[in-house]
Amino acid sequence: MIRLMMIGDVFGRAGRRALKDNIPGLVRDEQIDLVLANGENAAGGNGMTRENAREIFAAGVDVITMGNHVWNKKEIINYIDKEKRIVRPYNYPPGTPGTGFGLFKTKNNDMVGVVNLSGRVFMPELDCPFRCADQVIPILREETPVILMDFHAEATSEKAAMAYYLDGRLSAVCGTHTHVQTADERILEGGTAFITDVGMTGPRDSVIGVKKELVVHKFLTQMPQKFEAANGLYQFNAVIIDVQRDTGQAVAIKRIQNYE
Amino acid sequence: MIRLMMIGDVFGRAGRRALKDNIPGLVRDEQIDLVLANGENAAGGNGMTRENAREIFAAGVDVITMGNHVWNKKEIINYIDKEKRIVRPYNYPPGTPGTGFGLFKTKNNDMVGVVNLSGRVFMPELDCPFRCADQVIPILREETPVILMDFHAEATSEKAAMAYYLDGRLSAVCGTHTHVQTADERILEGGTAFITDVGMTGPRDSVIGVKKELVVHKFLTQMPQKFEAANGLYQFNAVIIDVQRDTGQAVAIKRIQNYE
Amino acid sequence: MIRLMMIGDVFGRAGRRALKDNIPGLVRDEQIDLVLANGENAAGGNGMTRENAREIFAAGVDVITMGNHVWNKKEIINYIDKEKRIVRPYNYPPGTPGTGFGLFKTKNNDMVGVVNLSGRVFMPELDCPFRCADQVIPILREETPVILMDFHAEATSEKAAMAYYLDGRLSAVCGTHTHVQTADERILEGGTAFITDVGMTGPRDSVIGVKKELVVHKFLTQMPQKFEAANGLYQFNAVIIDVQRDTGQAVAIKRIQNYE
Amino acid sequence: MIRLMMIGDVFGRAGRRALKDNIPGLVRDEQIDLVLANGENAAGGNGMTRENAREIFAAGVDVITMGNHVWNKKEIINYIDKEKRIVRPYNYPPGTPGTGFGLFKTKNNDMVGVVNLSGRVFMPELDCPFRCADQVIPILREETPVILMDFHAEATSEKAAMAYYLDGRLSAVCGTHTHVQTADERILEGGTAFITDVGMTGPRDSVIGVKKELVVHKFLTQMPQKFEAANGLYQFNAVIIDVQRDTGQAVAIKRIQNYE
Ligand SMILES: [Fe+2]
Ligand SMILES: [Fe+2]
Ligand SMILES: [Fe+2]
Ligand SMILES: [Fe+2]
Ligand SMILES: [Fe+2]
Ligand SMILES: [Fe+2]
Ligand SMILES: [Fe+2]
Ligand SMILES: [Fe+2]
Repeated sequence: MIRLMMIGDVFGRAGRRALKDNIPGLVRDEQIDLVLANGENAAGGNGMTRENAREIFAAGVDVITMGNHVWNKKEIINYIDKEKRIVRPYNYPPGTPGTGFGLFKTKNNDMVGVVNLSGRVFMPELDCPFRCADQVIPILREETPVILMDFHAEATSEKAAMAYYLDGRLSAVCGTHTHVQTADERILEGGTAFITDVGMTGPRDSVIGVKKELVVHKFLTQMPQKFEAANGLYQFNAVIIDVQRDTGQAVAIKRIQNYE
Repeated sequence: MIRLMMIGDVFGRAGRRALKDNIPGLVRDEQIDLVLANGENAAGGNGMTRENAREIFAAGVDVITMGNHVWNKKEIINYIDKEKRIVRPYNYPPGTPGTGFGLFKTKNNDMVGVVNLSGRVFMPELDCPFRCADQVIPILREETPVILMDFHAEATSEKAAMAYYLDGRLSAVCGTHTHVQTADERILEGGTAFITDVGMTGPRDSVIGVKKELVVHKFLTQMPQKFEAANGLYQFNAVIIDVQRDTGQAVAIKRIQNYE
Repeated sequence: MIRLMMIGDVFGRAGRRALKDNIPGLVRDEQIDLVLANGENAAGGNGMTRENAREIFAAGVDVITMGNHVWNKKEIINYIDKEKRIVRPYNYPPGTPGTGFGLFKTKNNDMVGVVNLSGRVFMPELDCPFRCADQVIPILREETPVILMDFHAEATSEKAAMAYYLDGRLSAVCGTHTHVQTADERILEGGTAFITDVGMTGPRDSVIGVKKELVVHKFLTQMPQKFEAANGLYQFNAVIIDVQRDTGQAVAIKRIQNYE
Repeated sequence: MIRLMMIGDVFGRAGRRALKDNIPGLVRDEQIDLVLANGENAAGGNGMTRENAREIFAAGVDVITMGNHVWNKKEIINYIDKEKRIVRPYNYPPGTPGTGFGLFKTKNNDMVGVVNLSGRVFMPELDCPFRCADQVIPILREETPVILMDFHAEATSEKAAMAYYLDGRLSAVCGTHTHVQTADERILEGGTAFITDVGMTGPRDSVIGVKKELVVHKFLTQMPQKFEAANGLYQFNAVIIDVQRDTGQAVAIKRIQNYE
């Protein structure tokens, strides 16, 4: 069995602290083989600096996936091509810096495929994530049947459709982007683990990571509002997924919510 | 203490069956004082017929709230004004059939205020739900501090902002619309219970209620696709909230997921 | 010189009548070599039946282009593959019925390439129209430098960006979809004729073709509203473009607005 | 007769230069009584500084209307309440800085009412512009029947619906926001002048004012792109409307397109 942990969008300073506080214990106690985290909000809510990425890897993350905020810190364009442990949504146009999938070795030398895709409903205009999945999964399956997708999308329908579409072809479809963990984790008929959203790892007393009074003010006034990451205690949101080494089928998915 | 149960979007035949199977036992075992359900998808996914409403009330629901699908079955325009137990989003323009809030008596003769509002992010262009809440809540509070809002919205940020904005002014903000239950139920500092989404009561093996192959086909082809409610076993999604009779403050919120 | 006429979205009965009344005279007086019309609203506003297509061809249209309403009349799926004179947006997924570009002969046996693409801003989630143009134009240019694109899009920025992106690679970029003719027709530096929107050929006293009181009611009430084509007198909106036979460069573009 | 000139969105340096070059001659030759201009893009595309406003007034503009970019230069919050000649969209929430309508005297001491509203289709979530118009127009009509609306909106349907809804109640509905002048100026049955979009006064060789290569790059890459105002020669887009002093009915509307 291979045990994967996927951590929901890491948001700002509180999110990064949550990684340091939680990953070592979980890896040890839960015997996790590979740790993934969505890093699109690592830099105070928007994007991820090189320094953020270093901090996240140092905290025990093996692979960082991204989302619609991937380019918010422009410096990522300079380092993403060199850092193969960062995977950005595959469905950006060809020629986009970085890569959309990768193969990663666990501590026990097992190979795990990782894909990142962005949804298109209420999201940027990218290539069709369903057809992109059709392209990428066979490439990864040549190396390993153990494959996890971070599907970064807004609409619950698009996420569920993706999971059903791919059921049996990969180990897990983990939704991200809404910053709220859903209570619908399950193993689909074909053996694919699915959760609509893993949630957020960041400041708890916030509106999806942002200082709540700023978001409320924005809704009340409809005027432009600079958002800032909230301070204070963190929440750590993740899922742990058990996958059969030889078939790539998931046999268990468990939600994690830790609090400071 | 007053115990309220809010049931997530009732979807089609399976959803209506779930109500009959689950409400009586829950009301008895959990000692529930008032049962609310979102009915916007009662008629096979779109809208609610008069017959659907009768069936839902007969199953033990005391108040039906609605959402963006409220007008999909046109006949509702004919009966919504006579049926005071149906509450549609308040932020439709003045003159819209039906009403957006109401006062309802529990079995023990306690008064409970109910408001329904629709979000505006990725949703129809209605009046500002925040300012509408500011209007309605004082009216209800003249009668009772025990007030529950069904905030029918897509974006997690809009739902959380609403809950924080109203914290301490009403008993509960229950999100609906995404059809996926979230795992973030909690009592905010001011005593307002909050969950981003209560989830869906309808066919489990589906994409948010719809036959999954139809939704997948729609995403793959981008061609118009008539959606049909899925068949098969149901899920029942709800929350149970305990509210202090005299202060209106919530002291507990518990998620319910029952399966056929 | 080759003279092309592109007619804006043909809307309902009034639009079809406008074709019969206007095309013969214009073809004769203006010496037009090829007549194109956008037919996505031919059937009372939504889609195009086989009978509509026959009527449009009989009125003197040589090529029908389409848009986001292409599939509204489902019967088109049955006849679009047999009728090579219908060109639907190319950027639907591979496998979609119909074709997205074609080569057509003028009365003088000159070859004209036609491409239809849909924008993505405020529109359905299709493949990137810019990259699709990069694919199609070279294919057509192997046969002829005289190429006209119907770019069916909402946002003025996307239409202008497309025209500048393709300037010098094809003869004309004609915007459609908004149903309002723009006054910005011009020849770009590289020799490509451009207009943001050709306009609508349909009922004049209407809101973009629809009975105006229905549209106003929809905006006022935010309730679902069945739209119907307006009656009454028509407007005929088109552009006439002169293209050099050997270079494919446009030398003139002229707007046409005829009224009943 | 009162002659009004409404100038389309003034974009950046080229737009401001166009005002200085064109207004004096037009006012003199066309005998214009009141000059209005949309200023939301005056500051290099985004918002309007105090200095921009001074420059625009000095160029001969009597009233500046705004749009969705009104708040992009934050300093406007400080000066908009003192400068009554700036009118921002009325349908922002109560309490928003500035005002949404005003009464202005022409050179001959005639009173002209001006309203600014923002559409809601593909635009920010503001109050219903139709119901806001119902509120404002009677207030202005108590002083004068000569009333011009700048309806800043994206969708052609929303603009046309507004014009038909208000036909006979005000002198003119001038659409702005798309930056492309439409060729549909006309007087409606009830005597209201209407044009879907007045167009843009700014750099001609651009994508709606922005350096075209930046916009093309944005569409091709879907990566964030800082937009900059284009340089070079300007275009000046406006309409001139003749209104009967005593009835407020428009009798003529004429489009203006001047080029450097
Ligand atoms: Fe995120
Ligand atoms: Fe995101
Ligand atoms: Fe629903
Ligand atoms: Fe809904
Ligand atoms: Fe159309
Ligand atoms: Fe269209
Ligand atoms: Fe503008
Ligand atoms: Fe604008």
